[in-house]
Amino acid sequence: MNTLAPTFKTLKEAQARLALENESRKNTALAGARDQIGRSRAAILAANTADVARARQQGMKNALIDRLSLDDTRIDSIIQGIDAVIACKDPVNTVKAAWTLPNGLAVEQRAVPLGVVAALYESRPNVTVDVFSLAYKAGCAVLLRGSSSALESNRALAAAITQGLIDGKGIAGAAALADSGDRDEVDEILRARGWIDAVIPRGGPELIRRAVENARVPVIQTGAGNCHIFVEQSADMNRAVDIIENAKVQKPGACNAVETLLVQKAAAPALMPLVARRLAGRVELRCDGFSKESIGAVPPELVLRGAAEEDWETEFLDYILAVKTVETLDQAIRHINRYGTGHSEAILTQDAAARERFLREVDAACVYVNASTRFTDGGEFGFGAELGISTQKFHARGPMGLEALTSIKYCVRGNGQIR
Amino acid sequence: MNTLAPTFKTLKEAQARLALENESRKNTALAGARDQIGRSRAAILAANTADVARARQQGMKNALIDRLSLDDTRIDSIIQGIDAVIACKDPVNTVKAAWTLPNGLAVEQRAVPLGVVAALYESRPNVTVDVFSLAYKAGCAVLLRGSSSALESNRALAAAITQGLIDGKGIAGAAALADSGDRDEVDEILRARGWIDAVIPRGGPELIRRAVENARVPVIQTGAGNCHIFVEQSADMNRAVDIIENAKVQKPGACNAVETLLVQKAAAPALMPLVARRLAGRVELRCDGFSKESIGAVPPELVLRGAAEEDWETEFLDYILAVKTVETLDQAIRHINRYGTGHSEAILTQDAAARERFLREVDAACVYVNASTRFTDGGEFGFGAELGISTQKFHARGPMGLEALTSIKYCVRGNGQIR
Repeated sequence: MNTLAPTFKTLKEAQARLALENESRKNTALAGARDQIGRSRAAILAANTADVARARQQGMKNALIDRLSLDDTRIDSIIQGIDAVIACKDPVNTVKAAWTLPNGLAVEQRAVPLGVVAALYESRPNVTVDVFSLAYKAGCAVLLRGSSSALESNRALAAAITQGLIDGKGIAGAAALADSGDRDEVDEILRARGWIDAVIPRGGPELIRRAVENARVPVIQTGAGNCHIFVEQSADMNRAVDIIENAKVQKPGACNAVETLLVQKAAAPALMPLVARRLAGRVELRCDGFSKESIGAVPPELVLRGAAEEDWETEFLDYILAVKTVETLDQAIRHINRYGTGHSEAILTQDAAARERFLREVDAACVYVNASTRFTDGGEFGFGAELGISTQKFHARGPMGLEALTSIKYCVRGNGQIR
Repeated sequence: MNTLAPTFKTLKEAQARLALENESRKNTALAGARDQIGRSRAAILAANTADVARARQQGMKNALIDRLSLDDTRIDSIIQGIDAVIACKDPVNTVKAAWTLPNGLAVEQRAVPLGVVAALYESRPNVTVDVFSLAYKAGCAVLLRGSSSALESNRALAAAITQGLIDGKGIAGAAALADSGDRDEVDEILRARGWIDAVIPRGGPELIRRAVENARVPVIQTGAGNCHIFVEQSADMNRAVDIIENAKVQKPGACNAVETLLVQKAAAPALMPLVARRLAGRVELRCDGFSKESIGAVPPELVLRGAAEEDWETEFLDYILAVKTVETLDQAIRHINRYGTGHSEAILTQDAAARERFLREVDAACVYVNASTRFTDGGEFGFGAELGISTQKFHARGPMGLEALTSIKYCVRGNGQIR
């Protein structure tokens, strides 16, 4: 078996040096990586073509093939992603708080790099570059463990990153690809206490579960999104339909897509016919009794079923929307806090009191008023790129950008103080 | 076997309610607990007397007996600790950052309670109250698992807390003592995924190791402190001796006590005779060759030994100080980053460049200039009380107060935005 021990050592040493690089030097190194990816475009696309051909041969589903595939537009978008990270402010050394103790000691709480982070991810090769660029900017070394299906693509991208860091006079050892393809490699990463400061699994529930169960290093759970939109009775119903459509249809496989529509009883007769007409032929509705009745004349193309208990629990990631009627705001909040996964939740309302209660009482990473849940995303939030979306409360929550890759240090200046 | 399942459920429900309490109501509840502890003083001291008698019978060492023992002064100090937490600003709902996206969405990053936390701790009954009061103020429910040696004391304190919360119209279910004395209880806590948001073990290395190895919930590592003082050549040598003495002698069993003195070669001849005279008869010195020679005439009461490699690695927690000569600031930083535990590190210097390099390059929770390492403490830092001192970088680092008990939530307000 290959062992990652030498890689861990290289990453740790590189991180100690990277932690001392200033913003300008880090940006130059990132620009080096960006330019080298541009120059390596043909090699990256050729490697990706090989990955895609192998995946097709092995019978991979079209949706996954699409996630795996690169083309010129996607390479452009990867390159733009690095530029977006370069444009972000370096968080390292920022003074987050400062105060003076009664004895005269001056305390500063400064941001410092988190250390060495590992990313475990599936299919999408762009994650290789997104995670690398955020980590580098935050002074963190990074171990990248993509899926075996994207191995050639990731190797080509990682080679371009390494050469680009050399060209840009950066710390080339600060990024490494774990590419043995060996499943034991994941366990070695999960157990690398003293070497890896955090593991971020990005992928399906099985990957997340495996990481959480086996890890001896800190794990940030990501991704599970059983998201709700609650249409309160005062909502603008036409606008509500636009938002529901967007949150369900624009990218149903995304973790921030809506899965259950909660509709206040008083709003159902106005809302449901509009929802049924807008989604007919595109989305299957699984309705409770009252919301179903409220549709009235069922549009011919609408697939309409009765909802079961398990529908409230399911992240469909598909063109399916569960619909439940609630009497009150309280019931809506209780339903969300019971069935939600703490990802993204929205209320559509014109009522200030309902809005503030929903914002306060719903326990989720992102809570929206009169907007689509689809905005839960590092890029949309202005973080440059995204490390993943944390659904835990520990260390990081919601879309993770540079801030999630930092820790703190207290710098204390005195003039002889003793206790 | 008892199971904590019903306790977990009660804590989780209580936390959801506590999260919505405002600062004034939480302070009233904390004042209730404080007053009830005052009223229960006799019962608490009687319970503690029983614990101490049992511990003596079982042959507990004097230092531990001292940590276990309560008296009127210590009860007063416990009560003052609650007042200090009442005086701290409530972190919950603080807007930590706010910005508007190009599409008009207004994003707020707000502080929210971390959730349900569990503390595993040894001997000292005051921890029961310190952790409870910080947690309550931060909107967190808390499961307290003290050592079996302090069981009666902790029961008396927990009973007073519960009654006090009732008196103060607070959420009485938000604090629970795990008091079966069963060792399996600890494992049940460590594996309570979905119920416990973080476990904080406070105690010896064995407790910490066990928590980290067995936990399926997030753990905050605390306590290990192999701390250094580096005397740079420009330091004021008389002030340096005061600081070294304080950091070693004032409380050698504390995690923030100094364990190794690093002295720059050029400073050794001036410093070491002063150190030897000041510590003679109180502290054993374990010196490398040059620092030993630099002492010159050895004071009659001084216990002086040669240092071995293992001395650089050891947290003595005793009246022992290892001393090593280094040629340069670089060597000092390298030694600290190699042997230190990332707890508390100090440089004594008058040189601005050396000071700034040390602050930047030493990788530790707290880095001091011209002050004793003994200030690494929640109370000293002005946090009211202390949950423990984190020696990890993930989620929290250094002395943990209210901030360590918070997470974030993004509140996003729109007017119909779709993606």
